[in-house]
Amino acid sequence: MIKLGVLLSGSGSNLQAIIDAIVEGRLNASIELVVSSRPDAFGLERAQKAGIPTVALTRETYIDPLAADALICEELQKVNVDYLVMAGYMRMVRSPLLQAFPNRIINIHPALLPAFPGAHGIADAFAAGVKVTGVTVHFASEIYDTGPIIAQRAIEVREDDTLESLEQRIHSVEHQLYPEVLQLIAQGRVSIREDGVVRIEEEAT
Amino acid sequence: MIKLGVLLSGSGSNLQAIIDAIVEGRLNASIELVVSSRPDAFGLERAQKAGIPTVALTRETYIDPLAADALICEELQKVNVDYLVMAGYMRMVRSPLLQAFPNRIINIHPALLPAFPGAHGIADAFAAGVKVTGVTVHFASEIYDTGPIIAQRAIEVREDDTLESLEQRIHSVEHQLYPEVLQLIAQGRVSIREDGVVRIEEEAT
Repeated sequence: MIKLGVLLSGSGSNLQAIIDAIVEGRLNASIELVVSSRPDAFGLERAQKAGIPTVALTRETYIDPLAADALICEELQKVNVDYLVMAGYMRMVRSPLLQAFPNRIINIHPALLPAFPGAHGIADAFAAGVKVTGVTVHFASEIYDTGPIIAQRAIEVREDDTLESLEQRIHSVEHQLYPEVLQLIAQGRVSIREDGVVRIEEEAT
Repeated sequence: MIKLGVLLSGSGSNLQAIIDAIVEGRLNASIELVVSSRPDAFGLERAQKAGIPTVALTRETYIDPLAADALICEELQKVNVDYLVMAGYMRMVRSPLLQAFPNRIINIHPALLPAFPGAHGIADAFAAGVKVTGVTVHFASEIYDTGPIIAQRAIEVREDDTLESLEQRIHSVEHQLYPEVLQLIAQGRVSIREDGVVRIEEEAT
């Protein structure tokens, strides 16, 4: 059983997927705290509905990144979380937070990194005309959308895809993959080699 | 039926895959000429064995890119090829050749472009620790490993993969995908939209 903190900024559909996986017994974890960078994020409602404590950055903390990260750190350490899960968190994770949770902050990105980093991974891939894109789950690092890759899943771009239909398929893969990867972590099967490559151990049988 | 010219520099395993597809009736094409940038490329032997005329750049032409491309152009136009297929051709295709065959030069790359361009696509992806890589077939453009993407196929990097085992799997996907894409072109189903995105038309039924 691992204790998670979830960082989000928006609707929190990945949070919901994680909550569902816990409820359905697919993920041996508990969510101790949900932190939103915005007080009006719908993800906060999802958390409250699931009985999870929440913290939202105020306007004052939001505009001061160091104060914000200090607050987040403090709140997360109070509840003793093991891992931080970024679920549509539209802010940089800065070094105080990275140092407090070394190789314990996990992010999901809607493209096959290192291709199409940034805030518009799906639209950028679609506009570039790639025929395969996907989803990446990785450890967060100082540089946005880099850091050791834990898992990736490929998604074919179909001839009749619109940006919207592609987005939908990518999000549905995210909602599958994220809880699966967190369960690998909960099972202690994920490690980072010295060369930065992530190893997944076989399941004990 | 389309007439192909093939450009290569090395062993020519993709040339072999294309020859095999033609012989087996999976690709309605003929190879009119194989051009090698090196006189000792094993691909030349494969061509000769299949009865395909060959031209190799001499040392004098090789070191002068413009003279080399002029020679290649001339030889290809003599035999009236419709499309140029790059099959392990370790040279830039320069603008005289691009202008002589606009959107008619096709390249294959052993990674999911735009990720891992360059001469070491497989090794770079492997070292980066990605969990998905693949193969890209694209139209050549002035900039190496860019140009409209025609097809891509994803390949999972396995926990027990070595660089060698991954290379093997990628090459075997190349050998499948390249003839398939050339057949799409032979069937007239490939077009480039104004925004640079490649469309594949459904097969007429």
